[in-house]
Amino acid sequence: MTGRGSLIVLSGFSGVGKGTVLKRMMEKYDNYAYSVSATTRAPRVGEVDGKDYFFLTTEKFESMIREGAFLEYARYVDNYYGTPRKYVEDRLDEGKDVILEIEVNGAINIRKMAPEAVLIYMLPPSADTLKERLTGRGTERAEVVAGRLGKAAEEAENIGRYDYVIVNDDADACAERLHSLIQAQHLRVNQNLDFIKEIQSGLEKFEEK
Amino acid sequence: MTGRGSLIVLSGFSGVGKGTVLKRMMEKYDNYAYSVSATTRAPRVGEVDGKDYFFLTTEKFESMIREGAFLEYARYVDNYYGTPRKYVEDRLDEGKDVILEIEVNGAINIRKMAPEAVLIYMLPPSADTLKERLTGRGTERAEVVAGRLGKAAEEAENIGRYDYVIVNDDADACAERLHSLIQAQHLRVNQNLDFIKEIQSGLEKFEEK
Repeated sequence: MTGRGSLIVLSGFSGVGKGTVLKRMMEKYDNYAYSVSATTRAPRVGEVDGKDYFFLTTEKFESMIREGAFLEYARYVDNYYGTPRKYVEDRLDEGKDVILEIEVNGAINIRKMAPEAVLIYMLPPSADTLKERLTGRGTERAEVVAGRLGKAAEEAENIGRYDYVIVNDDADACAERLHSLIQAQHLRVNQNLDFIKEIQSGLEKFEEK
Repeated sequence: MTGRGSLIVLSGFSGVGKGTVLKRMMEKYDNYAYSVSATTRAPRVGEVDGKDYFFLTTEKFESMIREGAFLEYARYVDNYYGTPRKYVEDRLDEGKDVILEIEVNGAINIRKMAPEAVLIYMLPPSADTLKERLTGRGTERAEVVAGRLGKAAEEAENIGRYDYVIVNDDADACAERLHSLIQAQHLRVNQNLDFIKEIQSGLEKFEEK
């Protein structure tokens, strides 16, 4: 029924497993496009330009702001983060569902810029599970884990601003549920106004005869 | 995550196949309860009390109105139609998703009484398909078909008041999509406030330690 794709914002605590779930979903279904954010912060070890982020100079980022090239952007501490508009719009026009994996403030900005966006928050089965997952990585010191949990507690206050929550109990099951949830968005009335109009005109034609 | 079921309103043009789709869905999945409406109109040939409608006297219906026993009711021409509240509330409390198959005015009343209700409109693949289905039954005279199509044209003006549209191209496929759509409603943030609060408290406890 629908031509255009849906704009999906996925957020969730650090360690909840967003990346794994998205990977499973996008490997299984080909109707998704992943929007890579841009930032002026320096790449961390292992991060790849154009995959993890587009790493831009501050000058370039600011000139893109002036051109209106970001769907949303924000400055945290000394760095900019933003969502390049063109990639998102082009994929939506192609009928792809575009996934933005961004944090709470970015999500709220997207809501303002694109009210039709669907905001989904991924949760762990429990707070204890999140702690176990963060600790279980084994690579982080106790202070780092504590810092992430503290940030999670702060972020949790904004979950009410999202449309949906999804629990990552098992990556495959969660990927399936996420896919179903996103596909259900195509049935929203405001995504199908052309089709509804077509049915209406068709019915009116019968009356004129 | 969710304890309580979702309240689902399904409407659609006469002849679109709501009954068949619901039957397929409810045969396959056992988490649904179908809410039978009450009316003061006389039963038609073949209609069964308690299955098609609860057939009530006007006196009984009006006494139930006074008791607040209807989730919504309306009077059309000389008859009352309404949704008995208790059955709906009890099934929702049991965690069942309750289906109300009602027409546009009833749906709008439900929206007022129960803002969390999900309103779904079932559409034919095209206006021509609807005409074919109505004609194809072969049992109706041309005037009756014309009357139904006229009523459909009127009803179509209110589709924008619904949350979702679903196309009945094939009863089994449509039943699957309807099921997915309803299950996705359990992920709505406002259906999961207790669970969200539980996660928030859990995270705050880590901070206090």
